[in-house]
Amino acid sequence: DKNLILVTGRAHPKLAAEVAEQLGIDVLETTAYDFANGEMYVRYTESVRGADVFVLQSHSNPVNQAIMEQLIMIDALKRASARSITAVCPLLGYSRQDKKHRGREPISCRLVFDLLKTAGADRIMSVDLHAAQSQGFFDGPVDHLIAMPVLVDYIRDRFSNQLDNVAVVSPDAGRIRVAEQWAQRLGGGPLAFVHKTRDITRPNQAVANRVVGDVAGKDCVLVDDLIDTAGTIAGACNVLKDAGAKSVTVVATHGVLSGPAVDRLKNCGAREVVLTDTVPIPEEKRWDGLTVLSIAPLLASAIRAVFEDGSVAELFDTYPE
Amino acid sequence: DKNLILVTGRAHPKLAAEVAEQLGIDVLETTAYDFANGEMYVRYTESVRGADVFVLQSHSNPVNQAIMEQLIMIDALKRASARSITAVCPLLGYSRQDKKHRGREPISCRLVFDLLKTAGADRIMSVDLHAAQSQGFFDGPVDHLIAMPVLVDYIRDRFSNQLDNVAVVSPDAGRIRVAEQWAQRLGGGPLAFVHKTRDITRPNQAVANRVVGDVAGKDCVLVDDLIDTAGTIAGACNVLKDAGAKSVTVVATHGVLSGPAVDRLKNCGAREVVLTDTVPIPEEKRWDGLTVLSIAPLLASAIRAVFEDGSVAELFDTYPE
Ligand SMILES: Nc1ncnc2c1ncn2[C@@H]1O[C@H](COP(=O)(O)O)[C@@H](O)[C@H]1O
Ligand SMILES: Nc1ncnc2c1ncn2[C@@H]1O[C@H](COP(=O)(O)O)[C@@H](O)[C@H]1O
Repeated sequence: DKNLILVTGRAHPKLAAEVAEQLGIDVLETTAYDFANGEMYVRYTESVRGADVFVLQSHSNPVNQAIMEQLIMIDALKRASARSITAVCPLLGYSRQDKKHRGREPISCRLVFDLLKTAGADRIMSVDLHAAQSQGFFDGPVDHLIAMPVLVDYIRDRFSNQLDNVAVVSPDAGRIRVAEQWAQRLGGGPLAFVHKTRDITRPNQAVANRVVGDVAGKDCVLVDDLIDTAGTIAGACNVLKDAGAKSVTVVATHGVLSGPAVDRLKNCGAREVVLTDTVPIPEEKRWDGLTVLSIAPLLASAIRAVFEDGSVAELFDTYPE
Repeated sequence: DKNLILVTGRAHPKLAAEVAEQLGIDVLETTAYDFANGEMYVRYTESVRGADVFVLQSHSNPVNQAIMEQLIMIDALKRASARSITAVCPLLGYSRQDKKHRGREPISCRLVFDLLKTAGADRIMSVDLHAAQSQGFFDGPVDHLIAMPVLVDYIRDRFSNQLDNVAVVSPDAGRIRVAEQWAQRLGGGPLAFVHKTRDITRPNQAVANRVVGDVAGKDCVLVDDLIDTAGTIAGACNVLKDAGAKSVTVVATHGVLSGPAVDRLKNCGAREVVLTDTVPIPEEKRWDGLTVLSIAPLLASAIRAVFEDGSVAELFDTYPE
């Protein structure tokens, strides 16, 4: 008989606890601490022999530590004869560095996949990779889950009586396909995108310019994969308001919320910001206008599906390419 | 014609500059910064195509960041068609986690070697690994340099007139072979070691007990590979003084100096503490009784030897097993 085990690094234990609850199991107890020099120690307190082990670690800041801890955890599982090891990375670190933009750059996203493989991961599970293509970086199965259904359900509820007034807006020409999916799921309303220029020498800064598409009087749902410093999103909010939007709701899967993000989101004129908890969002980064949806049910279903028959097709079959 | 390039991560740029000076070259300029979410960006400003590249990074605290940065640097070199890539890790991170002490533990030292290989390192260079056996973890050439000659020369100068009164002391039964090498190089004086017990549940704490060997009236040279919190060394100093040592000089290759280390070393009764700069030792961790010897000449000779004919045999042929 098969044996499902969930372990977690120290990046996002709350999410692991919620996933475990959904699965009706306990998170396996792990001893984990930092030595005085910053090296990490990990040990499992119970046997993992012969088990299908899922190692949950969100690559939240401090991201390098989160990644290294997960690698060490996987190494220990491999040496303790786990039957299979799935690295569950709700947010995969370095997923934005998925191609060389100029010569002599790394492809760090590919590197992270390679490192997980080398440590001993047989399989990777992640939610909304920055580019779906990155799945191909792993030499093995990747369960690429999408948060869209979770987010769409919430938005549909929110605008139940005025769905026909909702316009889905992409903050970026590069993400229009995703906005298209959204519009389709919401019932085929209008689409728009913000035509933005980026200063390549200052990658955390984005310059939002003008709206392409008609948003005047519309309830805009501005959809992105990840909010980091929120420069892009706040800029997009501003141009939408300037273009006569009735309201703006910001929706994103990964709420990284670095540095000025919270202030920017509070002051960008958005009615509501909706995120999932793929990365921990601590109390001090929450405010009244923020809604955090749990990603635990999605992860739990995928883990159960992989454990039972190795397939999560039904969870990602609608992902846009 | 061949082309030697030295690049460095951000952990110990001063050492890289010194090594470059010894080699008569410049460190290749690298753009390196942290994104707002803690992810790192690296790019080389000049071509590395066809070159034999040495990537110097000491795995000093924050060690996980140092390792990840080196991995990303190696990835970028590989993709930029470097001819060969040598990871130069004066202190190799996780080198103390070189075996499983109990079930369900990782072998993180092996993992670090595997990660470097996966990123694209063809060759590893390091100084005084915690256990020489760890060389075997890498599937390729490892240049395992020893700092002992550098340290021995300094001690010989220091005690030039009283060399016959010097006793070499190992802080630990496990390192007596190294102390033996030392005693031999210093001219065959007496040997001693501290019989110590360790509390396995608190790995950064060590309990020093009693001296085995005669140290009364002797100038003791207490030799270790790495000083982290200095608990072991300070304890050993104390028992040596109690056993009637005339003086104690502490000598170690890697001065990690975490937490209470500096205070302990200042107050342990040692006459002098002698370290190398395999890890950066900032001003605020230096005091009058501390001598820091440069490891740059050793690294530079090894890099030159590898570059010229791929062999550094003469630099490690005396390493004790
Ligand atoms: N953590 C990060 N924060 C901000 N920008 C990043 C990060 N990682 C990679 N990038 C950059 O973001 C860009 C990729 O974004 P995109 O072109 O929108 O897919 C590239 O210029 C990357 O170098
Ligand atoms: N960074 C570290 N700081 C302190 N102890 C460590 C560190 N890394 C590994 N260890 C432990 O140190 C012991 C190895 O030391 P030794 O037996 O002297 O070779 C093992 O118990 C390790 O778990």
